[in-house]
Amino acid sequence: MSEFLTIARDVHDELVISAYRSRGYSEEEAMLGTKLAAEAARHGIRTHHALKALHLDDLFGSRVGGCVPGAEIEVLTSRFPASETWNANMKLGQAVAYRAMDRAIELADQYGIAQIAVDNTFHYLWGGGYVMAAAERGYFAYTNCTSTLAEVVPFGGKFPTLGTNPHSWGIPSQEANGFPIVVDWATSVVAMGRVQALKREGRQLPSGAAVDCNGQPTTDPNQVAALLPFGGHKGYGMSLLNEIFGGLIGGSLPTVRGRGISDPGEKATTVFYFQVIHPEALSGRNFAHGRSQIENLKAVLDDILGHGNGTAMLPGQVEANARKASDEAGGLFFTAAEISEFNQLAEGLGMAMLVGKV
Amino acid sequence: MSEFLTIARDVHDELVISAYRSRGYSEEEAMLGTKLAAEAARHGIRTHHALKALHLDDLFGSRVGGCVPGAEIEVLTSRFPASETWNANMKLGQAVAYRAMDRAIELADQYGIAQIAVDNTFHYLWGGGYVMAAAERGYFAYTNCTSTLAEVVPFGGKFPTLGTNPHSWGIPSQEANGFPIVVDWATSVVAMGRVQALKREGRQLPSGAAVDCNGQPTTDPNQVAALLPFGGHKGYGMSLLNEIFGGLIGGSLPTVRGRGISDPGEKATTVFYFQVIHPEALSGRNFAHGRSQIENLKAVLDDILGHGNGTAMLPGQVEANARKASDEAGGLFFTAAEISEFNQLAEGLGMAMLVGKV
Repeated sequence: MSEFLTIARDVHDELVISAYRSRGYSEEEAMLGTKLAAEAARHGIRTHHALKALHLDDLFGSRVGGCVPGAEIEVLTSRFPASETWNANMKLGQAVAYRAMDRAIELADQYGIAQIAVDNTFHYLWGGGYVMAAAERGYFAYTNCTSTLAEVVPFGGKFPTLGTNPHSWGIPSQEANGFPIVVDWATSVVAMGRVQALKREGRQLPSGAAVDCNGQPTTDPNQVAALLPFGGHKGYGMSLLNEIFGGLIGGSLPTVRGRGISDPGEKATTVFYFQVIHPEALSGRNFAHGRSQIENLKAVLDDILGHGNGTAMLPGQVEANARKASDEAGGLFFTAAEISEFNQLAEGLGMAMLVGKV
Repeated sequence: MSEFLTIARDVHDELVISAYRSRGYSEEEAMLGTKLAAEAARHGIRTHHALKALHLDDLFGSRVGGCVPGAEIEVLTSRFPASETWNANMKLGQAVAYRAMDRAIELADQYGIAQIAVDNTFHYLWGGGYVMAAAERGYFAYTNCTSTLAEVVPFGGKFPTLGTNPHSWGIPSQEANGFPIVVDWATSVVAMGRVQALKREGRQLPSGAAVDCNGQPTTDPNQVAALLPFGGHKGYGMSLLNEIFGGLIGGSLPTVRGRGISDPGEKATTVFYFQVIHPEALSGRNFAHGRSQIENLKAVLDDILGHGNGTAMLPGQVEANARKASDEAGGLFFTAAEISEFNQLAEGLGMAMLVGKV
C-alpha cells in the first residue's frame, strides 16, 4: 500500500464526527455516520469513505434539505410481529441502517426471520457494511435500497430508468473461512464512476456495459449515455427487484427521483429494505459426518474452492484482506490527495491538521 | 404455435396422475406433481413438463430410491414462530414445495414474513411455478434450491463445483401489469441442455458461457467441460448463495451430490428454501398522489417501461403470453414427438391413446 498514507482511526473519527456535528447532526448520527465511513475505508471500499459521504451530504443532504439532521424515525403500527415499517423522515441513512439492522436482529432472535422496510430515506452509502456487521454478530443479513439516479437501461430498452441499485448479503461464515462472506454488488456491469475513470485514462469499457444516446452499445467512455445491467436479463431482474421493493414500500418514480424534475406530487426519496435470518432457524440438524452447522458450511465451501479452484475467491475476501492490511498498519489508508482534503476539512473546522504517515 | 399440437388439460392430467400413481405415489403427490407439470407446459416452460419430471423420476427418483413415494414430511420442533424446518424424507419435490409455500403463506399472514427450510429433498423442477402461484394469491414469494449436479466453475476457478441453481422471485403485481412478475433464472449463462442443443445444431455458444477441460474459455459446444456463472463474479455470488443456504440447512457437498461418488458418510440429497412476505408488511402507507400500494407499484413499473422502453419486457411476460395462448387453444402445447411419448406412456398404463389436435 505504498501509494497510501495512514491516518489513525481515532484521529479520523474525531475529525469526521466534528464535520457531522458542525452540520447539525446529533451525537449518535455523527458517530454512526463516522463508523460506517471508517469501516468502508478499513475494508478498502474507497468509493464510500468519509469524503464521499460528506460530499453527498453537501450535494443532496443537509445543505439542501435532502437529509434532515436530528430527524426522528417514526415506527408505524403493524399487525405483523416479525416486520416493522419505518418512516425515516430523511434521517441520516447510516444512523437509520445501523438501527434497522439492530432491530431486525432482535426480531430474528425471536421469530427466526425478520424484516424492516424504511420509507423516506437518505443514502446509506455502503450496504455491505451493515450486512457484514450483522454477519460478524452471527446473523444472515440482507439489504437493498433504491438508487438516487436512474442510470441503467432495462434489458431490451434504450432509456435509463433503473438505478445501479445494489443488493447485499452477509453470511456469518467467519468460523468456517475466516471472514464473513459478503455478496455485495451494483446491478450494472460497471458504475458510472468507472466510466469517468476510463475516460480520464483514455481506455475502453468492456463490451455490453453501456449504450450511447441512441441506445446502441458502445465501449467508448466518451459516448456513454447510460449503463447496462450485468448479465443481460438476469441482472435486469435483480435491478428491477429493488424498484419493486421500493414501489411497495413507498418509493417514488425512478426517473423523477434525484433528477430534480418538478412534480410536487411525486416523492423524491429513496427507500431501504433490511432482512435478518437467525442461522439456527435454517438448520435441519442433520449434517453429514456429525458436523455442526458451521462445520457443514465449511465442508461445502472447502468443496467449492477445492479441486484446483484455489485461484477462486469467496466474496468478501478482498474486503477482509484490506481490513487486515489496515489493522496491521494501525490506521486507515488514504491517498495524499485525500489527506489534503481531510486537512482542508480540519482547517475549516478549526481543528489540528492531520499528519499521515507513509 | 403451428408446430405444436394441443392436449386438453384434463386428458393430460388424467394420464400424468396415472403415471405417478403407477409408481406408488399417493393421490396428493400424483395430483401436485401433475399440477406443476401442467402449469409448466401451460406457461411455456418446455424443459420442465411432465415428460421431464417422469424422466427425472426414472433416472434419480422412485426407480432408484432417490425419491420415496408416500414419504411423510417431518416438521422439526422450533423456537422460532415465523420459521419452520422440515425433513422431507425424500418425498416428491412438487408435493413438498406446494405444501411449503402454503405453510409459508399462513405464517406470513401472521408474522409479515416467514421461511421454510427443507432438508433431504428431491428435485421440485420449476421454482418459478411455486412463486408464481403464491404471487397469484397476493404474496411476495422467493425460493432457491441446490442443484443435483455441479456443472458450474466458480469465478476465477477451473473445476465445476457449483450448480446452475436457480433463484426464483414472484411478485403479486398482476393488478399493476396484468400478470405476476416472476424473476426466475439459472445462475449459469446457459444451461447444459442448451449446450447439447447447440452441439446438435452445429452452432457456437456465446462467449463467456463455458470452459473446456483445461478451464479455458470456449464457444465450441463440443469442447465444453463446464459452465460459467452469468455476470462473472456477480452471478458466482448468486450461485454460491444457494450452496450457502444448502450448507446451513443440511445440504451435502456439491461435488458428491448427484455424481454417485461413494462416500457413505456424506449426504447426496438436495435442499429447498422458501420465503414469503405479506405485501402489507412492506407498506409505508404514504404513496405519492394518494396512490394505493399496487397503484404505486404500477406507476413505478410504467415509469421503468416508459420513455421509449416499450421494447423492454417485465420478467414473467413470456410465461404470461404462453399461458394466454395455451388457454385460448383450450389445452397444453406439445410437439408431435412429445405426444408420441405421451402415447407410449398411455399404452404402458393400459390407457386410451391421446389424440392431439393441430
